Amino acid sequence: MTDFTIVLGTRIWSTWSMRPWLALRRTGASFEEVVIELRRPDTRENVLAVSPSGFVPLLIDRRSDTPIKVWDSLAIAEYLAESFPEAGLWPSDPAARAVARSVSAEMHSGFRPMRMAMPMDLFAHLPGQGIDSEDVAADIRRIDQIFCDCRTAYGQSGPYLFGHFTIADAMFAPVVSRFRTYEPALTGIAARYVETMLADDGFIAWEEAARRAL
Amino acid sequence: MTDFTIVLGTRIWSTWSMRPWLALRRTGASFEEVVIELRRPDTRENVLAVSPSGFVPLLIDRRSDTPIKVWDSLAIAEYLAESFPEAGLWPSDPAARAVARSVSAEMHSGFRPMRMAMPMDLFAHLPGQGIDSEDVAADIRRIDQIFCDCRTAYGQSGPYLFGHFTIADAMFAPVVSRFRTYEPALTGIAARYVETMLADDGFIAWEEAARRAL
Repeated sequence: MTDFTIVLGTRIWSTWSMRPWLALRRTGASFEEVVIELRRPDTRENVLAVSPSGFVPLLIDRRSDTPIKVWDSLAIAEYLAESFPEAGLWPSDPAARAVARSVSAEMHSGFRPMRMAMPMDLFAHLPGQGIDSEDVAADIRRIDQIFCDCRTAYGQSGPYLFGHFTIADAMFAPVVSRFRTYEPALTGIAARYVETMLADDGFIAWEEAARRAL
Repeated sequence: MTDFTIVLGTRIWSTWSMRPWLALRRTGASFEEVVIELRRPDTRENVLAVSPSGFVPLLIDRRSDTPIKVWDSLAIAEYLAESFPEAGLWPSDPAARAVARSVSAEMHSGFRPMRMAMPMDLFAHLPGQGIDSEDVAADIRRIDQIFCDCRTAYGQSGPYLFGHFTIADAMFAPVVSRFRTYEPALTGIAARYVETMLADDGFIAWEEAARRAL
């Protein structure tokens, strides 16, 4: 049995699942996956069979005698950062880490207009669709600003938001997929960061697994 | 000058501000407050004057030469937990900490129907109002379950969710205020926890400051 099990929702849609999976993959830990197909009549029943509280994504850590269960994308990410300090899932500099946590939390609780109007659909191409209100446009502008601010202030040592890959990149990965699908106008720095993420090993591995499941 | 400044929104309404303020108070650090009155024509302008990115709550840590700014309630809470390990803002046991982070993250991104239907209004008494849909009722049942599960599994050493006061209590403090205002039916364990929080020093200090500002 592997050290970890991660319970995921359907890969092409499940933004919440993609984030902790990308972080878990970066730790190098051995893990197995359970994928629950979403939007089916028996989805709820299938979730409850593996995740008694009804949560997906769910991480089960079997390294000790009593398995530890962690749910919610951001809680799983914090759990992995703490469990695998050598993976550098947060920036090591305290000021950079504070900003990485701030923008990750912004993504965790915010941008609802954009999330509702531009749902993630990994292989869809719908340029210009979804950007149908000033609230959505404001969300896109703020995300563009986050990408530019982080890349400019903290991203000198590598191509990710804080140089190397961190939880902040995992949290915004579904937005990168949305930006490829809906093609909003972005500044140059933000557009280059989107290209970086689309070429990321983890992002591509998630896509390949999603394609195999189609 | 104090070590920290915390920028808050109007106390009777600002659930997002209450949470990190309760955590900051528990650290014992010296801090000053800036309160921005919400729901006024000049609110946006006043926020931007102290918080250039437009975020409230905002924590400014002045302990080093370059002040560190952290925004978003949960990011501030994690920052304080890391900065003040002796304050025990997360449970020390890894399994308990994993659950504390999970339920805190659930509160951070979820329970939207309840939050919309039962806004926090610290001194209002509106029994039975707001609980107007199955979605709201389901949110209340899930929060009741969280209170019961945490108290039963991890709360033996004290009256809070994980025994002593943690970030999880801070995250659910606005819900406690809502439950006092709207009086939904709760199980005995959940109702007793609500009483505990209503008698908490920090909760009362927040109320007193809110009353002075009326």
